[in-house]
Amino acid sequence: MDSVTSQTPAPDVRTVISVDAMGGDRGPAAVVAGIARSAAKNPDIRFILHGPEDKLTKLVARRRSLTGRCEIRHADGIVTMDEKPSHVMRRGKGTSMWSAVESVRLGEAGACVSCGNTGALMAVSMLRLRKLPGINRPAIACLWPSRNPGGFNVMLDVGADIRADEHDLLQYALMGASYARNGLDLSHPRIGLLNVGTEEHKGRSELKLAHDLISIAAGSNNFAFVGFVEGGDIPSKHVDVIVTDGFTGNVALKTAEGTASLISELLKAAFKFTPLSRIAALLAYTSMQRLKKRIDPRRVNGGVFLGLNGTVVKSHGSADATGVSSAVKLAFQLAQSGFAERLAARVASSAAPRQDAAQDEENNER
Amino acid sequence: MDSVTSQTPAPDVRTVISVDAMGGDRGPAAVVAGIARSAAKNPDIRFILHGPEDKLTKLVARRRSLTGRCEIRHADGIVTMDEKPSHVMRRGKGTSMWSAVESVRLGEAGACVSCGNTGALMAVSMLRLRKLPGINRPAIACLWPSRNPGGFNVMLDVGADIRADEHDLLQYALMGASYARNGLDLSHPRIGLLNVGTEEHKGRSELKLAHDLISIAAGSNNFAFVGFVEGGDIPSKHVDVIVTDGFTGNVALKTAEGTASLISELLKAAFKFTPLSRIAALLAYTSMQRLKKRIDPRRVNGGVFLGLNGTVVKSHGSADATGVSSAVKLAFQLAQSGFAERLAARVASSAAPRQDAAQDEENNER
Repeated sequence: MDSVTSQTPAPDVRTVISVDAMGGDRGPAAVVAGIARSAAKNPDIRFILHGPEDKLTKLVARRRSLTGRCEIRHADGIVTMDEKPSHVMRRGKGTSMWSAVESVRLGEAGACVSCGNTGALMAVSMLRLRKLPGINRPAIACLWPSRNPGGFNVMLDVGADIRADEHDLLQYALMGASYARNGLDLSHPRIGLLNVGTEEHKGRSELKLAHDLISIAAGSNNFAFVGFVEGGDIPSKHVDVIVTDGFTGNVALKTAEGTASLISELLKAAFKFTPLSRIAALLAYTSMQRLKKRIDPRRVNGGVFLGLNGTVVKSHGSADATGVSSAVKLAFQLAQSGFAERLAARVASSAAPRQDAAQDEENNER
Repeated sequence: MDSVTSQTPAPDVRTVISVDAMGGDRGPAAVVAGIARSAAKNPDIRFILHGPEDKLTKLVARRRSLTGRCEIRHADGIVTMDEKPSHVMRRGKGTSMWSAVESVRLGEAGACVSCGNTGALMAVSMLRLRKLPGINRPAIACLWPSRNPGGFNVMLDVGADIRADEHDLLQYALMGASYARNGLDLSHPRIGLLNVGTEEHKGRSELKLAHDLISIAAGSNNFAFVGFVEGGDIPSKHVDVIVTDGFTGNVALKTAEGTASLISELLKAAFKFTPLSRIAALLAYTSMQRLKKRIDPRRVNGGVFLGLNGTVVKSHGSADATGVSSAVKLAFQLAQSGFAERLAARVASSAAPRQDAAQDEENNER
């Protein structure tokens, strides 16, 4: 990673992260604590922080690591968790979320991070940043604990859109491959298409069509296509990127989180069952901490919006300082690698022929 | 449960389970070991066992608990795991699977159990048993470890069909409620509809329509409707039955199994990391066994086919004796409770108005 020295009068935009201080479940204090942690670890990073100026000024003043590295951009409004995206699109202009996305649009920041309402953040991001030419549906990509050496696989879409046809799924494959190259440093990522079986005759018709499209695109787009994968293969070491529609992806993600939290509860209960097992629990403490760290959802915090003119990272609404700091780290890495530009170039080059076809289709439809 | 004494010359068909001995990954020995275990525990149960007579006769002769309680029905053919359902429907007549389903059709057995190929078993079951009047798509229901007092929730469809419209989802709700009453002894089950959010405006259009249909049906069908639930709510104690289409349900089920097995591997690795943690592992052994038993997939073995004229239980292909015995236990309980007849009555009474509408639609389509 090229580090940019902080003496430069105008800092490289790739080192600046735009952060929405509001809208998360734990309020701005957790967000400021998180970016302070990132600032302490990463001497190159700078922030533009969006939200109510007086409140944020006080919170930032308490953090030495942020001195001179965090500009506060005043915004009165807050997007709440239950606000409808359509409402935020019409009336969200004065909110911290809108302002945070705007900094990316204006080229002041290399990426944006928000803990706010996912649907609203996607709506504002689409409205202000606009979709990349050639992209029909943007997607949200998440990291998934896996058996691969790097410890994570990528899955997309996990909830940007509840629908995806074969062309959308192809675009997800291209975007996911690009994200794996820039976010996970995998030069030749392996892509799998989520289905209810691995045999080619299985699944919905759009999946069979997508199977063929992705298979054809693999060679010229520098990724491998492993074909259909099943739910049990998402953490597999035989695949790096799992492509699916946003409905299935969202259900799978939440099902996995729910399963992990059920097992963790049952594990705690099992260790409390007898005096002997309580002693075992004490001895096992470090082992359990090691495991917990390995699958800690805060470490994989950050859904990345793909397919827009700019990088937006959605942090968990309930993220604490550790969670916010993970999301910021991911945003910084993507900004540094010039991910948005590379993805745009990749999509443009591979989507050109399909663009024309889509144009024809649209003309027919009208 | 009314026990039927074994002195009766013709045994009550509700105590007879028809078992496909072939097609499972572990072969007929595991199946015979499983039914022998069930026979030892349950003095009322009897079996009709389908497969190659000479092989099965030898296996059964070795099990004292099966003496005089297991009739062998010869069938040469075996349905393999990779055989296409359409092929089995055309050419499967001489197979043990076909023969096992046939025993239910002929009224010789109260339910059928098979460890074979799911798609083929569903195809043969639909062909021979036929769908219940009023049912468009049969479904497979599975048990899911949960926080409820009984320890399990029901989810359907987990893979009978990759599509489901709002009427199918309503039928799944009715069938799931009936199954929860007869299989889990819940008098007033709570039904949830799987979606990507709990707000009513979220999700695909068929889900919004199904939400209204199920909501209306709840009162007269003796269940409660809790509305939309998310992937994380599948093991929740606020719901008993989760309704979804077979594509989403299958992905969710396999994702949960994959997550559980990843955590179990990581847990083992964590306990092997240091000498101290190895000691902890020894002390924690009974706690871990307790947890393992709680979420042991063999204990929840048995996907039940709903919506047919007869009860078919699909056991895991890799089921060992414990797994087969669980599936047999479930089949016996359902046969005893007269589940198939009760479900038929329930569907018939609630589907009458819709039947007429569907008839009209079909007529229009032709």
